[in-house]
Amino acid sequence: MAALTDSATTISELKNRVLAFARERDWEQFHSPKNLSMALAAESGELMEHFLWSTPEQSRAVAVDAVKRQKIAEELADVIIYALEFANVTGLDVAAAIEAKMAANARKYPVEKARGRADKYTEL
Amino acid sequence: MAALTDSATTISELKNRVLAFARERDWEQFHSPKNLSMALAAESGELMEHFLWSTPEQSRAVAVDAVKRQKIAEELADVIIYALEFANVTGLDVAAAIEAKMAANARKYPVEKARGRADKYTEL
Amino acid sequence: MAALTDSATTISELKNRVLAFARERDWEQFHSPKNLSMALAAESGELMEHFLWSTPEQSRAVAVDAVKRQKIAEELADVIIYALEFANVTGLDVAAAIEAKMAANARKYPVEKARGRADKYTEL
Amino acid sequence: MAALTDSATTISELKNRVLAFARERDWEQFHSPKNLSMALAAESGELMEHFLWSTPEQSRAVAVDAVKRQKIAEELADVIIYALEFANVTGLDVAAAIEAKMAANARKYPVEKARGRADKYTEL
Repeated sequence: MAALTDSATTISELKNRVLAFARERDWEQFHSPKNLSMALAAESGELMEHFLWSTPEQSRAVAVDAVKRQKIAEELADVIIYALEFANVTGLDVAAAIEAKMAANARKYPVEKARGRADKYTEL
Repeated sequence: MAALTDSATTISELKNRVLAFARERDWEQFHSPKNLSMALAAESGELMEHFLWSTPEQSRAVAVDAVKRQKIAEELADVIIYALEFANVTGLDVAAAIEAKMAANARKYPVEKARGRADKYTEL
Repeated sequence: MAALTDSATTISELKNRVLAFARERDWEQFHSPKNLSMALAAESGELMEHFLWSTPEQSRAVAVDAVKRQKIAEELADVIIYALEFANVTGLDVAAAIEAKMAANARKYPVEKARGRADKYTEL
Repeated sequence: MAALTDSATTISELKNRVLAFARERDWEQFHSPKNLSMALAAESGELMEHFLWSTPEQSRAVAVDAVKRQKIAEELADVIIYALEFANVTGLDVAAAIEAKMAANARKYPVEKARGRADKYTEL
Protein backbone atom coordinates (compact mmCIF):
# COMPACT_ATOMS: atom_id res chain seq x y z
CA MET A 1 0.00 0.00 0.00
CA ALA A 2 1.41 3.33 -1.03
CA ALA A 3 2.17 5.65 1.86
CA LEU A 4 1.02 9.25 1.92
CA THR A 5 3.55 12.02 1.40
CA ASP A 6 3.29 15.76 1.80
CA SER A 7 4.07 16.40 -1.83
CA ALA A 8 1.23 14.19 -3.10
CA THR A 9 -1.44 14.79 -0.47
CA THR A 10 -3.90 17.65 -0.38
CA ILE A 11 -5.25 19.20 2.81
CA SER A 12 -8.69 17.93 1.86
CA GLU A 13 -7.48 14.35 1.67
CA LEU A 14 -6.17 14.54 5.23
CA LYS A 15 -9.27 16.34 6.46
CA ASN A 16 -11.48 13.66 4.95
CA ARG A 17 -9.53 10.84 6.55
CA VAL A 18 -9.76 12.48 9.95
CA LEU A 19 -13.47 13.09 9.56
CA ALA A 20 -14.15 9.52 8.40
CA PHE A 21 -12.30 8.16 11.42
CA ALA A 22 -14.51 10.16 13.79
CA ARG A 23 -17.72 9.34 11.90
CA GLU A 24 -17.07 5.62 11.90
CA ARG A 25 -16.86 5.74 15.69
CA ASP A 26 -19.81 8.10 16.13
CA TRP A 27 -17.47 10.59 17.79
CA GLU A 28 -18.83 13.71 16.15
CA GLN A 29 -21.02 14.22 19.21
CA PHE A 30 -17.84 14.85 21.24
CA HIS A 31 -16.13 16.96 18.60
CA SER A 32 -17.43 20.42 19.44
CA PRO A 33 -15.09 23.33 18.70
CA LYS A 34 -14.61 23.76 22.46
CA ASN A 35 -13.56 20.17 23.04
CA LEU A 36 -11.34 20.06 19.96
CA SER A 37 -9.58 23.27 20.93
CA MET A 38 -8.81 21.70 24.32
CA ALA A 39 -7.52 18.50 22.74
CA LEU A 40 -5.36 20.53 20.36
CA ALA A 41 -3.86 22.55 23.21
CA ALA A 42 -3.30 19.44 25.33
CA GLU A 43 -1.49 17.69 22.47
CA SER A 44 0.60 20.80 21.84
CA GLY A 45 1.62 20.58 25.47
CA GLU A 46 2.73 16.99 25.00
CA LEU A 47 4.87 17.94 22.01
CA MET A 48 6.43 20.73 24.04
CA GLU A 49 7.30 18.40 26.89
CA HIS A 50 10.07 16.90 24.79
CA PHE A 51 11.93 20.21 24.86
CA LEU A 52 11.40 21.60 28.36
CA TRP A 53 14.94 21.56 29.65
CA SER A 54 16.99 21.59 26.47
CA THR A 55 18.35 24.80 25.01
CA PRO A 56 16.95 25.88 21.65
CA GLU A 57 20.16 24.64 20.03
CA GLN A 58 19.99 21.27 21.75
CA SER A 59 16.41 20.87 20.58
CA ARG A 60 17.62 20.86 16.97
CA ALA A 61 19.37 17.55 17.62
CA VAL A 62 15.91 15.99 17.67
CA ALA A 63 15.90 15.98 13.91
CA VAL A 64 18.69 13.40 13.89
CA ASP A 65 17.89 11.19 16.91
CA ALA A 66 15.79 8.36 15.49
CA VAL A 67 14.01 7.29 18.67
CA LYS A 68 12.99 10.82 19.70
CA ARG A 69 11.98 11.61 16.13
CA GLN A 70 9.46 8.82 16.12
CA LYS A 71 7.81 10.09 19.31
CA ILE A 72 7.83 13.66 18.14
CA ALA A 73 6.29 12.65 14.81
CA GLU A 74 3.44 11.04 16.74
CA GLU A 75 2.86 14.13 18.89
CA LEU A 76 2.93 16.41 15.86
CA ALA A 77 0.46 14.11 14.09
CA ASP A 78 -1.91 14.34 17.06
CA VAL A 79 -1.71 18.14 17.00
CA ILE A 80 -2.46 18.38 13.29
CA ILE A 81 -5.20 15.75 13.41
CA TYR A 82 -7.09 17.82 15.97
CA ALA A 83 -6.43 21.03 14.04
CA LEU A 84 -7.87 19.44 10.89
CA GLU A 85 -10.87 18.07 12.73
CA PHE A 86 -11.45 21.53 14.17
CA ALA A 87 -11.47 22.83 10.59
CA ASN A 88 -13.89 20.05 9.63
CA VAL A 89 -16.45 20.83 12.29
CA THR A 90 -16.27 24.60 11.82
CA GLY A 91 -16.25 24.41 8.04
CA LEU A 92 -13.00 26.34 7.74
CA ASP A 93 -10.70 26.06 4.73
CA VAL A 94 -7.19 25.67 6.14
CA ALA A 95 -5.30 26.72 3.01
CA ALA A 96 -7.40 29.84 2.56
CA ALA A 97 -7.04 30.74 6.25
CA ILE A 98 -3.26 30.31 6.09
CA GLU A 99 -2.98 32.29 2.87
CA ALA A 100 -4.97 35.16 4.40
CA LYS A 101 -3.03 35.07 7.67
CA MET A 102 0.33 35.03 5.91
CA ALA A 103 -0.69 38.03 3.83
CA ALA A 104 -1.58 39.87 7.04
CA ASN A 105 1.70 38.77 8.63
CA ALA A 106 3.63 40.04 5.61
CA ARG A 107 2.11 43.48 6.16
CA LYS A 108 2.92 43.41 9.87
CA TYR A 109 6.43 42.09 9.29
CA PRO A 110 7.84 43.68 6.12
CA VAL A 111 11.07 41.96 5.10
CA GLU A 112 13.24 45.06 5.37
CA LYS A 113 12.12 45.81 8.94
CA ALA A 114 11.77 42.31 10.32
CA ARG A 115 14.93 40.72 8.94
CA GLY A 116 16.88 38.94 11.62
CA ARG A 117 14.70 40.29 14.43
CA ALA A 118 12.43 38.39 16.78
CA ASP A 119 10.60 41.47 18.02
CA LYS A 120 6.85 41.74 17.92
CA TYR A 121 5.59 43.90 15.05
CA THR A 122 4.48 46.54 17.51
CA GLU A 123 8.14 47.01 18.44
CA LEU A 124 9.78 46.98 15.02
CA MET B 1 -4.79 36.08 -7.90
CA ALA B 2 -6.33 32.69 -7.36
CA ALA B 3 -6.88 31.85 -3.70
CA LEU B 4 -5.69 28.59 -2.19
CA THR B 5 -8.21 25.92 -1.25
CA ASP B 6 -7.84 22.72 0.71
CA SER B 7 -8.91 20.58 -2.22
CA ALA B 8 -6.24 21.98 -4.55
CA THR B 9 -3.35 22.53 -2.13
CA THR B 10 -0.84 19.93 -1.04
CA ILE B 11 0.81 19.89 2.38
CA SER B 12 4.14 20.56 0.68
CA GLU B 13 2.85 23.73 -0.92
CA LEU B 14 1.84 25.12 2.46
CA LYS B 15 5.07 23.97 4.10
CA ASN B 16 7.09 25.69 1.38
CA ARG B 17 5.22 28.96 1.76
CA VAL B 18 5.76 28.94 5.51
CA LEU B 19 9.44 28.16 5.11
CA ALA B 20 9.94 30.86 2.48
CA PHE B 21 8.32 33.42 4.76
CA ALA B 22 10.77 32.62 7.56
CA ARG B 23 13.79 32.47 5.24
CA GLU B 24 13.06 35.85 3.70
CA ARG B 25 13.16 37.36 7.18
CA ASP B 26 16.18 35.38 8.35
CA TRP B 27 14.05 33.89 11.11
CA GLU B 28 15.33 30.35 10.86
CA GLN B 29 17.78 31.18 13.64
CA PHE B 30 14.78 31.55 15.99
CA HIS B 31 12.90 28.52 14.69
CA SER B 32 14.36 25.77 16.81
CA PRO B 33 12.01 22.86 17.61
CA LYS B 34 11.86 24.10 21.21
CA ASN B 35 10.79 27.60 20.27
CA LEU B 36 8.31 26.42 17.64
CA SER B 37 6.70 23.96 20.05
CA MET B 38 6.18 26.87 22.48
CA ALA B 39 4.71 29.09 19.78
CA LEU B 40 2.39 26.29 18.70
CA ALA B 41 1.18 25.72 22.27
CA ALA B 42 0.74 29.45 22.87
CA GLU B 43 -1.34 29.83 19.70
CA SER B 44 -3.42 26.79 20.65
CA GLY B 45 -4.13 28.57 23.92
CA GLU B 46 -5.35 31.62 22.03
CA LEU B 47 -7.70 29.52 19.93
CA MET B 48 -9.03 27.91 23.09
CA GLU B 49 -9.70 31.26 24.73
CA HIS B 50 -12.66 31.76 22.43
CA PHE B 51 -14.45 28.83 24.07
CA LEU B 52 -13.60 29.07 27.78
CA TRP B 53 -17.02 29.73 29.21
CA SER B 54 -19.33 28.37 26.55
CA THR B 55 -20.76 24.90 26.72
CA PRO B 56 -19.61 22.43 24.05
CA GLU B 57 -22.98 22.91 22.33
CA GLN B 58 -22.72 26.71 22.40
CA SER B 59 -19.25 26.49 20.88
CA ARG B 60 -20.76 24.95 17.74
CA ALA B 61 -22.48 28.25 17.03
CA VAL B 62 -19.06 29.60 16.10
CA ALA B 63 -19.40 27.98 12.73
CA VAL B 64 -22.19 30.35 11.83
CA ASP B 65 -21.22 33.65 13.53
CA ALA B 66 -19.30 35.56 10.86
CA VAL B 67 -17.28 37.85 13.14
CA LYS B 68 -16.12 35.09 15.46
CA ARG B 69 -15.40 32.81 12.51
CA GLN B 70 -12.93 35.30 11.10
CA LYS B 71 -11.01 35.49 14.37
CA ILE B 72 -11.06 31.77 14.85
CA ALA B 73 -9.83 31.21 11.31
CA GLU B 74 -6.86 33.44 12.11
CA GLU B 75 -6.03 31.58 15.32
CA LEU B 76 -6.31 28.22 13.58
CA ALA B 77 -4.05 29.47 10.80
CA ASP B 78 -1.42 30.50 13.37
CA VAL B 79 -1.56 27.07 14.96
CA ILE B 80 -1.13 25.22 11.68
CA ILE B 81 1.57 27.60 10.41
CA TYR B 82 3.71 26.80 13.45
CA ALA B 83 2.96 23.09 13.15
CA LEU B 84 4.09 23.13 9.51
CA GLU B 85 7.21 25.12 10.32
CA PHE B 86 7.96 22.60 13.07
CA ALA B 87 7.71 19.87 10.41
CA ASN B 88 9.98 21.92 8.15
CA VAL B 89 12.79 22.32 10.67
CA THR B 90 12.63 18.73 11.88
CA GLY B 91 12.28 17.26 8.40
CA LEU B 92 9.07 15.45 9.23
CA ASP B 93 6.53 14.43 6.60
CA VAL B 94 3.14 15.45 7.99
CA ALA B 95 1.01 13.20 5.80
CA ALA B 96 3.13 10.15 6.57
CA ALA B 97 3.10 10.95 10.29
CA ILE B 98 -0.69 11.33 10.30
CA GLU B 99 -1.21 8.16 8.28
CA ALA B 100 0.96 6.19 10.73
CA LYS B 101 -0.71 7.71 13.79
CA MET B 102 -4.20 7.06 12.47
CA ALA B 103 -3.30 3.44 11.81
CA ALA B 104 -2.12 3.16 15.42
CA ASN B 105 -5.28 4.90 16.64
CA ALA B 106 -7.43 2.49 14.64
CA ARG B 107 -5.80 -0.41 16.48
CA LYS B 108 -6.33 1.26 19.87
CA TYR B 109 -9.91 2.25 19.07
CA PRO B 110 -11.53 -0.51 17.01
CA VAL B 111 -14.87 0.65 15.63
CA GLU B 112 -16.97 -1.97 17.38
CA LYS B 113 -15.55 -1.14 20.83
CA ALA B 114 -15.13 2.62 20.53
CA ARG B 115 -18.41 3.52 18.86
CA GLY B 116 -20.16 6.33 20.66
CA ARG B 117 -17.75 6.27 23.60
CA ALA B 118 -15.33 8.97 24.71
CA ASP B 119 -13.34 6.67 27.00
CA LYS B 120 -9.61 6.30 26.72
CA TYR B 121 -8.57 3.09 24.97
CA THR B 122 -7.22 1.73 28.23
CA GLU B 123 -10.76 1.80 29.58
CA LEU B 124 -12.69 0.38 26.63
CA MET C 1 4.82 14.22 60.83
CA ALA C 2 2.23 16.93 60.57
CA ALA C 3 0.87 17.42 57.07
CA LEU C 4 0.61 20.84 55.48
CA THR C 5 -2.81 22.43 55.05
CA ASP C 6 -3.90 25.52 53.17
CA SER C 7 -5.14 27.23 56.31
CA ALA C 8 -1.81 26.92 58.12
CA THR C 9 0.66 27.34 55.25
CA THR C 10 1.90 30.62 53.83
CA ILE C 11 2.83 31.13 50.21
CA SER C 12 6.42 31.70 51.30
CA GLU C 13 6.59 28.34 52.98
CA LEU C 14 5.58 26.58 49.78
CA LYS C 15 7.91 28.74 47.67
CA ASN C 16 10.81 27.90 49.96
CA ARG C 17 10.15 24.19 49.78
CA VAL C 18 10.03 24.28 46.01
CA LEU C 19 13.23 26.31 45.82
CA ALA C 20 15.06 24.02 48.25
CA PHE C 21 14.08 20.99 46.18
CA ALA C 22 15.59 22.53 43.05
CA ARG C 23 18.73 23.77 44.84
CA GLU C 24 19.48 20.40 46.39
CA ARG C 25 19.53 18.91 42.89
CA ASP C 26 21.44 21.79 41.29
CA TRP C 27 18.48 22.37 38.98
CA GLU C 28 18.48 26.16 39.13
CA GLN C 29 20.58 26.15 35.96
CA PHE C 30 17.55 24.69 34.10
CA HIS C 31 14.98 26.91 35.79
CA SER C 32 15.01 29.95 33.55
CA PRO C 33 11.70 31.82 33.24
CA LYS C 34 11.41 30.51 29.68
CA ASN C 35 11.79 26.88 30.68
CA LEU C 36 9.53 27.21 33.71
CA SER C 37 6.79 28.87 31.67
CA MET C 38 6.93 25.92 29.28
CA ALA C 39 6.78 23.39 32.10
CA LEU C 40 3.85 25.25 33.63
CA ALA C 41 1.95 25.26 30.34
CA ALA C 42 2.73 21.60 29.71
CA GLU C 43 1.46 20.60 33.16
CA SER C 44 -1.67 22.70 32.65
CA GLY C 45 -2.23 20.70 29.49
CA GLU C 46 -2.00 17.47 31.46
CA LEU C 47 -4.55 18.68 33.99
CA MET C 48 -6.86 19.64 31.14
CA GLU C 49 -6.59 16.21 29.53
CA HIS C 50 -8.78 14.79 32.27
CA PHE C 51 -11.71 16.85 31.03
CA LEU C 52 -11.44 16.82 27.23
CA TRP C 53 -14.60 14.98 26.36
CA SER C 54 -16.78 15.52 29.40
CA THR C 55 -19.32 18.31 29.56
CA PRO C 56 -18.69 21.07 32.09
CA GLU C 57 -21.36 19.49 34.32
CA GLN C 58 -19.81 16.03 34.08
CA SER C 59 -16.44 17.49 35.03
CA ARG C 60 -17.84 18.48 38.42
CA ALA C 61 -18.19 14.81 39.29
CA VAL C 62 -14.42 14.74 39.58
CA ALA C 63 -14.70 16.25 43.00
CA VAL C 64 -16.33 13.08 44.29
CA ASP C 65 -14.57 10.29 42.37
CA ALA C 66 -11.71 9.24 44.64
CA VAL C 67 -9.41 7.72 42.00
CA LYS C 68 -9.67 10.65 39.59
CA ARG C 69 -9.31 13.10 42.45
CA GLN C 70 -5.93 11.69 43.37
CA LYS C 71 -4.64 12.08 39.82
CA ILE C 72 -6.04 15.55 39.47
CA ALA C 73 -4.52 16.60 42.78
CA GLU C 74 -1.14 15.51 41.44
CA GLU C 75 -1.55 17.46 38.20
CA LEU C 76 -2.69 20.56 40.06
CA ALA C 77 0.30 20.25 42.39
CA ASP C 78 2.65 20.12 39.40
CA VAL C 79 1.07 23.25 37.95
CA ILE C 80 1.37 25.22 41.19
CA ILE C 81 4.89 23.96 41.91
CA TYR C 82 6.09 25.37 38.58
CA ALA C 83 4.17 28.60 39.12
CA LEU C 84 5.82 29.06 42.53
CA GLU C 85 9.26 28.26 41.15
CA PHE C 86 8.63 30.80 38.40
CA ALA C 87 7.89 33.34 41.15
CA ASN C 88 11.07 32.28 42.93
CA VAL C 89 13.38 32.80 39.98
CA THR C 90 11.79 36.08 38.92
CA GLY C 91 11.54 37.44 42.46
CA LEU C 92 7.79 37.99 42.22
CA ASP C 93 5.52 38.13 45.27
CA VAL C 94 2.53 35.96 44.40
CA ALA C 95 0.13 37.38 46.99
CA ALA C 96 0.91 40.96 45.98
CA ALA C 97 0.55 40.10 42.29
CA ILE C 98 -2.82 38.42 42.90
CA GLU C 99 -4.07 41.27 45.08
CA ALA C 100 -3.15 43.80 42.36
CA LYS C 101 -4.66 41.70 39.57
CA MET C 102 -7.89 41.14 41.45
CA ALA C 103 -8.22 44.88 42.08
CA ALA C 104 -7.81 45.46 38.34
CA ASN C 105 -10.32 42.70 37.60
CA ALA C 106 -12.82 44.26 39.99
CA ARG C 107 -12.62 47.50 38.01
CA LYS C 108 -13.08 45.66 34.70
CA TYR C 109 -15.90 43.49 36.04
CA PRO C 110 -18.02 45.57 38.43
CA VAL C 111 -20.47 43.36 40.30
CA GLU C 112 -23.59 45.03 38.98
CA LYS C 113 -22.56 44.65 35.32
CA ALA C 114 -20.84 41.30 35.45
CA ARG C 115 -23.28 39.36 37.60
CA GLY C 116 -24.21 36.07 36.01
CA ARG C 117 -22.49 36.87 32.74
CA ALA C 118 -19.49 35.17 31.17
CA ASP C 119 -18.85 37.94 28.64
CA LYS C 120 -15.48 39.59 28.32
CA TYR C 121 -15.33 43.02 29.99
CA THR C 122 -15.11 44.68 26.57
CA GLU C 123 -18.59 43.32 25.83
CA LEU C 124 -20.37 44.09 29.09
CA MET D 1 -4.55 49.53 53.12
CA ALA D 2 -1.98 46.93 53.95
CA ALA D 3 -0.80 44.96 50.94
CA LEU D 4 -0.61 41.19 50.94
CA THR D 5 2.79 39.50 50.96
CA ASP D 6 3.79 35.87 50.48
CA SER D 7 5.34 35.65 53.94
CA ALA D 8 2.16 36.78 55.71
CA THR D 9 -0.55 35.22 53.52
CA THR D 10 -1.83 31.68 53.76
CA ILE D 11 -3.06 29.68 50.80
CA SER D 12 -6.54 29.69 52.33
CA GLU D 13 -6.64 33.47 52.43
CA LEU D 14 -5.94 33.64 48.70
CA LYS D 15 -8.38 30.85 47.93
CA ASN D 16 -11.10 32.63 49.87
CA ARG D 17 -10.53 35.91 48.07
CA VAL D 18 -10.72 34.20 44.70
CA LEU D 19 -13.88 32.35 45.67
CA ALA D 20 -15.55 35.49 47.03
CA PHE D 21 -14.80 37.33 43.79
CA ALA D 22 -16.55 34.63 41.76
CA ARG D 23 -19.49 34.33 44.18
CA GLU D 24 -20.18 38.05 44.18
CA ARG D 25 -20.54 37.90 40.41
CA ASP D 26 -22.53 34.65 40.37
CA TRP D 27 -19.79 33.08 38.29
CA GLU D 28 -19.68 29.73 40.04
CA GLN D 29 -22.04 28.41 37.36
CA PHE D 30 -19.21 28.88 34.81
CA HIS D 31 -16.47 27.56 37.06
CA SER D 32 -16.63 23.86 36.34
CA PRO D 33 -13.33 21.97 36.60
CA LYS D 34 -13.36 21.61 32.80
CA ASN D 35 -13.72 25.33 32.17
CA LEU D 36 -11.21 26.30 34.84
CA SER D 37 -8.61 23.86 33.49
CA MET D 38 -9.01 25.51 30.08
CA ALA D 39 -8.67 29.00 31.53
CA LEU D 40 -5.59 27.92 33.46
CA ALA D 41 -3.98 26.46 30.34
CA ALA D 42 -4.88 29.51 28.25
CA GLU D 43 -3.34 31.87 30.83
CA SER D 44 -0.22 29.69 31.01
CA GLY D 45 0.05 30.12 27.26
CA GLU D 46 -0.10 33.90 27.66
CA LEU D 47 2.69 33.84 30.23
CA MET D 48 4.77 31.70 27.89
CA GLU D 49 4.29 34.11 24.99
CA HIS D 50 6.68 36.53 26.66
CA PHE D 51 9.54 34.08 26.19
CA LEU D 52 8.96 32.47 22.78
CA TRP D 53 12.01 33.71 20.94
CA SER D 54 14.43 34.48 23.72
CA THR D 55 17.03 31.99 24.85
CA PRO D 56 16.67 30.60 28.36
CA GLU D 57 19.47 32.93 29.46
CA GLN D 58 17.84 35.98 27.91
CA SER D 59 14.59 35.13 29.65
CA ARG D 60 16.31 35.66 33.02
CA ALA D 61 16.65 39.35 32.20
CA VAL D 62 12.91 39.59 32.76
CA ALA D 63 13.53 39.72 36.47
CA VAL D 64 15.20 43.11 36.10
CA ASP D 65 13.19 44.81 33.31
CA ALA D 66 10.52 46.79 35.14
CA VAL D 67 7.97 47.07 32.32
CA LYS D 68 8.09 43.38 31.39
CA ARG D 69 8.03 42.39 35.05
CA GLN D 70 4.73 44.13 35.56
CA LYS D 71 3.13 42.29 32.64
CA ILE D 72 4.56 38.98 33.70
CA ALA D 73 3.35 39.49 37.26
CA GLU D 74 -0.17 39.96 35.86
CA GLU D 75 0.03 36.80 33.75
CA LEU D 76 1.37 34.77 36.66
CA ALA D 77 -1.40 36.13 38.88
CA ASP D 78 -4.01 34.99 36.33
CA VAL D 79 -2.50 31.52 36.24
CA ILE D 80 -2.49 31.13 40.01
CA ILE D 81 -5.95 32.64 40.43
CA TYR D 82 -7.40 29.96 38.15
CA ALA D 83 -5.37 27.25 39.85
CA LEU D 84 -6.72 28.32 43.25
CA GLU D 85 -10.28 28.52 41.95
CA PHE D 86 -9.84 25.03 40.52
CA ALA D 87 -8.81 23.91 44.02
CA ASN D 88 -11.85 25.69 45.44
CA VAL D 89 -14.41 23.99 43.21
CA THR D 90 -12.84 20.53 43.51
CA GLY D 91 -12.28 20.83 47.26
CA LEU D 92 -8.55 20.15 46.97
CA ASP D 93 -6.04 21.29 49.57
CA VAL D 94 -3.17 22.83 47.63
CA ALA D 95 -0.54 22.61 50.35
CA ALA D 96 -1.32 18.96 51.04
CA ALA D 97 -1.29 18.14 47.32
CA ILE D 98 2.08 19.86 46.87
CA GLU D 99 3.57 18.19 49.93
CA ALA D 100 2.46 14.76 48.66
CA LYS D 101 3.70 15.42 45.12
CA MET D 102 7.07 16.68 46.30
CA ALA D 103 7.50 13.57 48.44
CA ALA D 104 6.78 11.45 45.35
CA ASN D 105 9.18 13.57 43.28
CA ALA D 106 11.90 13.14 45.91
CA ARG D 107 11.58 9.38 45.51
CA LYS D 108 11.73 9.62 41.72
CA TYR D 109 14.61 12.08 41.76
CA PRO D 110 16.96 11.17 44.60
CA VAL D 111 19.52 13.93 45.12
CA GLU D 112 22.56 11.79 44.40
CA LYS D 113 21.21 10.58 41.04
CA ALA D 114 19.45 13.71 39.86
CA ARG D 115 22.01 16.33 40.78
CA GLY D 116 22.75 18.61 37.83
CA ARG D 117 20.76 16.50 35.38
CA ALA D 118 17.62 17.44 33.50
CA ASP D 119 16.79 13.87 32.47
CA LYS D 120 13.44 12.30 33.18
CA TYR D 121 13.51 9.94 36.14
CA THR D 122 13.01 6.98 33.83
CA GLU D 123 16.38 7.80 32.27
CA LEU D 124 18.45 8.49 35.39
